[in-house]
Amino acid sequence: MARPDSMIPLAPPEGGGPHYIALRDQIATSIEAGQLAAGAKLPSERQLQTGAGTARGTVREALFQLEAEGLIYRRERSGWYVSPPAVTYDPTRWSGFMTYVAEQGRRPATRTVSKESAPATAAVSDIFRVAPGTLLYVIGRLRSIDGRPVLVEKITVDPALAPGLLDHSLDGSLTQVLTREYGATVIRNRVDMRPCALIKTVADELGVKSGTPGLLVVRTSFDAGGRVVEYDQEYWRHDAIRVHVDLSVRG
Amino acid sequence: MARPDSMIPLAPPEGGGPHYIALRDQIATSIEAGQLAAGAKLPSERQLQTGAGTARGTVREALFQLEAEGLIYRRERSGWYVSPPAVTYDPTRWSGFMTYVAEQGRRPATRTVSKESAPATAAVSDIFRVAPGTLLYVIGRLRSIDGRPVLVEKITVDPALAPGLLDHSLDGSLTQVLTREYGATVIRNRVDMRPCALIKTVADELGVKSGTPGLLVVRTSFDAGGRVVEYDQEYWRHDAIRVHVDLSVRG
Repeated sequence: MARPDSMIPLAPPEGGGPHYIALRDQIATSIEAGQLAAGAKLPSERQLQTGAGTARGTVREALFQLEAEGLIYRRERSGWYVSPPAVTYDPTRWSGFMTYVAEQGRRPATRTVSKESAPATAAVSDIFRVAPGTLLYVIGRLRSIDGRPVLVEKITVDPALAPGLLDHSLDGSLTQVLTREYGATVIRNRVDMRPCALIKTVADELGVKSGTPGLLVVRTSFDAGGRVVEYDQEYWRHDAIRVHVDLSVRG
Repeated sequence: MARPDSMIPLAPPEGGGPHYIALRDQIATSIEAGQLAAGAKLPSERQLQTGAGTARGTVREALFQLEAEGLIYRRERSGWYVSPPAVTYDPTRWSGFMTYVAEQGRRPATRTVSKESAPATAAVSDIFRVAPGTLLYVIGRLRSIDGRPVLVEKITVDPALAPGLLDHSLDGSLTQVLTREYGATVIRNRVDMRPCALIKTVADELGVKSGTPGLLVVRTSFDAGGRVVEYDQEYWRHDAIRVHVDLSVRG
């Protein structure tokens, strides 16, 4: 079966190219052909070196290249593994993580790692239109797909809108809790995304190296009165997400 | 003046945090307050070290952190500079780079670095529904904002749709050339985005270190007959782009 991302050739521009490209292409082809399945462990660097009859440095270059492309990833003290396919996130649709991940035949999970009342920073107080220092709910969660952590998020909610929110279980869809328990209805979503390097605290939670490329997705949702219902900052590992938008002229 | 990205606090989660965070916060505050303007050179690492009375390693940690957040960037053999504000790209709008960059009060430029006929790879031939090996036009361009290179792109066009395309100047909007000279009318755009690490060939052209986080934006545009008009792969430096989508319930 073709990987969904086989549509986007991530290979470097054609041309003679350096030595490691041949090994990179060989491994990438094995992955695309399914000989190396998602989650499979790659042969050790030493085995690859012997197999390819090439220098250690060349093997590492090829592996780093594949990692950069999101095709493989490292597990600490264990070796290299084939990345599971990325999930597709469409910011023009309304469904949340638990829904769109399940729709793609994958198993989503959410774990609350922290919940507290914390004073609003200057930037956050602007967003909520409250005085800096106002206590807001801040929820930290770790989300995973098929058991692999893919994002760390920090959600801010105004207690005025949802008093006692932190007493509820937040290990599912927060939007559902806000709708069901507090009657909050979102009518507008602002989504901002930017590529980033994952900083140490986030990288540690995701089990990747500090500085690994990531995607920051910030979603601000508003109710009919223009009040912010949720302010959510998600830090994704780069090989777990792809963003897709389909735009047609209205016929 | 507030930087547009001051809306998104990119700082790590609150808490005691390591030593370098204090220096990071201090520099970030100077940037946000405009004391360090976009394009300004930071004091040298040695000066920062003396000023902060801290270890060299701490200074570097703080600088790497700010780089990861996209607030500063390195110029080879020159030092650290404040990043210009990112431009906003909205995949739900139709305007091209030359237009949306100019609309944001910035100066866009395009330079064609290569144009050739090249045989379609398996993946590309699928997209264009031609036999693998069919000769397609491949155009390489470097685009910059206010004189700073921000993206490298590779555009593929089927000569059957635009014979002689490579004889035209391609240093502006390619879409305009295709419309004006060939009557190609795009009615659908597919946009796929994924964070990536910039591979060496791309990083070299953008003047960044290989492995720097980037964003890959792939746009496939179709005409009314479902034919692919343009297949465009853009590799952006991570601090130059932010993606924005605003979604409202239809009232």
